[in-house]
Amino acid sequence: MDFDRINDLLLAKKYSLLKEELLKEQNADIAEFIDELDPKTTLLVYRLLPKEIAADVFANLFPESQSQLSMQINEKELHDILEDLSFDDKIDFLEEMPANMVKRILKNAPESERKLINQFLNYHEDSAGSLMTIELVNLKKEMSVQDALDKIRRNALDKETIYTCYVTDASRHLEGIVSLRDLVIAAPTKKVEEIMRKEMISVTTSEDKEYVAELISKYDLLAIPVTDNENRLVGIITVDDIVDVIEDENTEDFHKMATVGKIDINLLDASPFLLIKKRLPWLMVLIFMNILSGAGIAHYEKTIHAVIALVFFMPLLIGSAGNAGSQSSTLMIRSLAIGDVEISDWFSLLRKEIVVAILLGLVMAVAVSIIGMFRGGPDVAIIVALSMVVVVLVGCTIGMSLPFLLSKLKMDPATASGPLVASIADIAGILIYFSIATWYLGL
Amino acid sequence: MDFDRINDLLLAKKYSLLKEELLKEQNADIAEFIDELDPKTTLLVYRLLPKEIAADVFANLFPESQSQLSMQINEKELHDILEDLSFDDKIDFLEEMPANMVKRILKNAPESERKLINQFLNYHEDSAGSLMTIELVNLKKEMSVQDALDKIRRNALDKETIYTCYVTDASRHLEGIVSLRDLVIAAPTKKVEEIMRKEMISVTTSEDKEYVAELISKYDLLAIPVTDNENRLVGIITVDDIVDVIEDENTEDFHKMATVGKIDINLLDASPFLLIKKRLPWLMVLIFMNILSGAGIAHYEKTIHAVIALVFFMPLLIGSAGNAGSQSSTLMIRSLAIGDVEISDWFSLLRKEIVVAILLGLVMAVAVSIIGMFRGGPDVAIIVALSMVVVVLVGCTIGMSLPFLLSKLKMDPATASGPLVASIADIAGILIYFSIATWYLGL
Repeated sequence: MDFDRINDLLLAKKYSLLKEELLKEQNADIAEFIDELDPKTTLLVYRLLPKEIAADVFANLFPESQSQLSMQINEKELHDILEDLSFDDKIDFLEEMPANMVKRILKNAPESERKLINQFLNYHEDSAGSLMTIELVNLKKEMSVQDALDKIRRNALDKETIYTCYVTDASRHLEGIVSLRDLVIAAPTKKVEEIMRKEMISVTTSEDKEYVAELISKYDLLAIPVTDNENRLVGIITVDDIVDVIEDENTEDFHKMATVGKIDINLLDASPFLLIKKRLPWLMVLIFMNILSGAGIAHYEKTIHAVIALVFFMPLLIGSAGNAGSQSSTLMIRSLAIGDVEISDWFSLLRKEIVVAILLGLVMAVAVSIIGMFRGGPDVAIIVALSMVVVVLVGCTIGMSLPFLLSKLKMDPATASGPLVASIADIAGILIYFSIATWYLGL
Repeated sequence: MDFDRINDLLLAKKYSLLKEELLKEQNADIAEFIDELDPKTTLLVYRLLPKEIAADVFANLFPESQSQLSMQINEKELHDILEDLSFDDKIDFLEEMPANMVKRILKNAPESERKLINQFLNYHEDSAGSLMTIELVNLKKEMSVQDALDKIRRNALDKETIYTCYVTDASRHLEGIVSLRDLVIAAPTKKVEEIMRKEMISVTTSEDKEYVAELISKYDLLAIPVTDNENRLVGIITVDDIVDVIEDENTEDFHKMATVGKIDINLLDASPFLLIKKRLPWLMVLIFMNILSGAGIAHYEKTIHAVIALVFFMPLLIGSAGNAGSQSSTLMIRSLAIGDVEISDWFSLLRKEIVVAILLGLVMAVAVSIIGMFRGGPDVAIIVALSMVVVVLVGCTIGMSLPFLLSKLKMDPATASGPLVASIADIAGILIYFSIATWYLGL
């Protein structure tokens, strides 16, 4: 999209040309352009859009732009937009709005819709319920393929997806699914019952959305049906929403592994206060862990006084233990997250980790013993080399085991962040290093 | 899936019951079950599967199981499987096979297919070409909607997706796309030309697959057409393959951020040698960076000798600089990766980072000055508090800027891993801490 050209038209107030240029673009791109405008211009540009695409562009805007816009337009306009939004986009929008605004909007909605919206707003934000849409094609098993196709044809415009259709009985119990592909291929006189699949994958509204993402990814689904506890169909979740879930979950894990709390808005919009709130807690925890490292050093003051050259190698040894340990923890956290590895694999992975750690430690020991030789003579070289093997082994063992332990305790393995593992490895590293030195030097 | 029950049937050699139970499951689950078996049993169970699902189960197996199986079966069986595999799955399989095996397989393929397969095997593994399939529905613009639907009906079984169809001219230039939804809704006598969309999103074969994932996610596509440099349609990429790309790219970034090289197989199957190869290089680089920290400490030996209590606070101060710095770098790396932030946003983010870093530093300074007071009196408390504010500020500035710098240099921002940022922050932290101490104490 040629943002510069469109911006020029906007500045030159050539609105009809601007409109023409905008309409050549994808709706997601138009939304991206509007997101960058100041509040006043936002309204102006938004009003240029024809009704057919206005709602879709609205659905693609950042929540901040959506709420800004909805404060500026009149009630009639807002009502028109909401009516054209697909149900899940409407819920997403209302979730971001202040409560009094939601009340005002719902006031004008019919009783049945109001109830439904309130029900959806109550689903936990991490649940399948919060992701689903109610706009699906619902068929009956007695229908003929021809009838089913006719129904789809009549309703296609309002539905989120028509590529998977859902067969329910009179009380909306889910009985089967049938893909548009199967309907198109089948003889028109066949009954839906004959071609529908009865074994299907579905989730309940309270299911965690991360699990829904796993299912959709594993079975290559375009959509998954969502039922209540009595197996009554209440909605579907489509693959395009799942792509966003996957990215969000990954972002959360990335942040967690760098000891940052959950930030679900764009960094550009995050206030300094929010960032501090999400960053400070773990930094403080880590400070108190580092005090233990300090205490460890203080404990070996005599050894340090005797051979001050030992301090030279301290950052290198504890750094290596921490770095190797974070490598191990990250490998495990990720493998656990994508399901490559399960808790029961811990022991076989531990055996491999020990082999890897010893070999890594040996190579690194050779490298540092050469430096040790130059810097402090053969005694220091031996102490540093010996310490290196042991600290890397201990760092890796802690790093690889901690995610499993957390998982076993039903906590998120990603809590075993690099900085946490490094801090633990630091403490262990200092104790090991100075113990070996004290022992070897006979102090 | 009830693995235990199925395993019991297998052990009891109740093969017909076993087959019955297996066939109740999804193909992806059957594959998961077979992946766990030993080589001999793999073949036995695989041969129980009816021809209709054998190829799909095969496509879902781990590459290791695929190659094992293909060594054990005879040429005729292998030929049958390959014939039933969809084109992209066939390419995925051949990519994992040793070259002589590929030659043997291709020997029996018709000339045209051999050429096509060789062309696909040559696409770079990170390119759109390597992901695409050639099984798509190809329409002509002169066709009526009825003709188009008839063609889809005849060909649906062989095609990866029929939900988006592609309109090309006589020389296969891409002219438009039309969704099955639009075809189903349209009057049967309309021409395809009248309902097809001419503005469409497509990629070329050499495009990076990460970019393809971005497009599919941004525009909520089910499939994206892939063209050669002359805009001739060569294939499509479907959303289910993109879900895997997104997970793989995230895995790569997770590993990179913990200084681990690219590992694209299950951790359980990775040999110790592979793991060492992927982990050692950065560990060695970081050792040499940590030598600089050691040299920094050695340089201030006199100061340390004078007030040995200063060493107690060293892990805490350099740890905090590193931790805050990795938080900043991770936040930036992730925001850059998902496109929330661009290189041009660096300056405005830097200003915010400075505010955040100073406030974080102040809170942490208060905490450590209390400990400093107890441990070394008011002088140490003041030195430690002052150092904390400065090292956190420096750590954060380095951490947040490094990903932008790498991005500017066309390198992957994720190279600014936590351990790298922490090592740089360590060096800076030691220099700052002991400079402040030396100055304040007038040494």
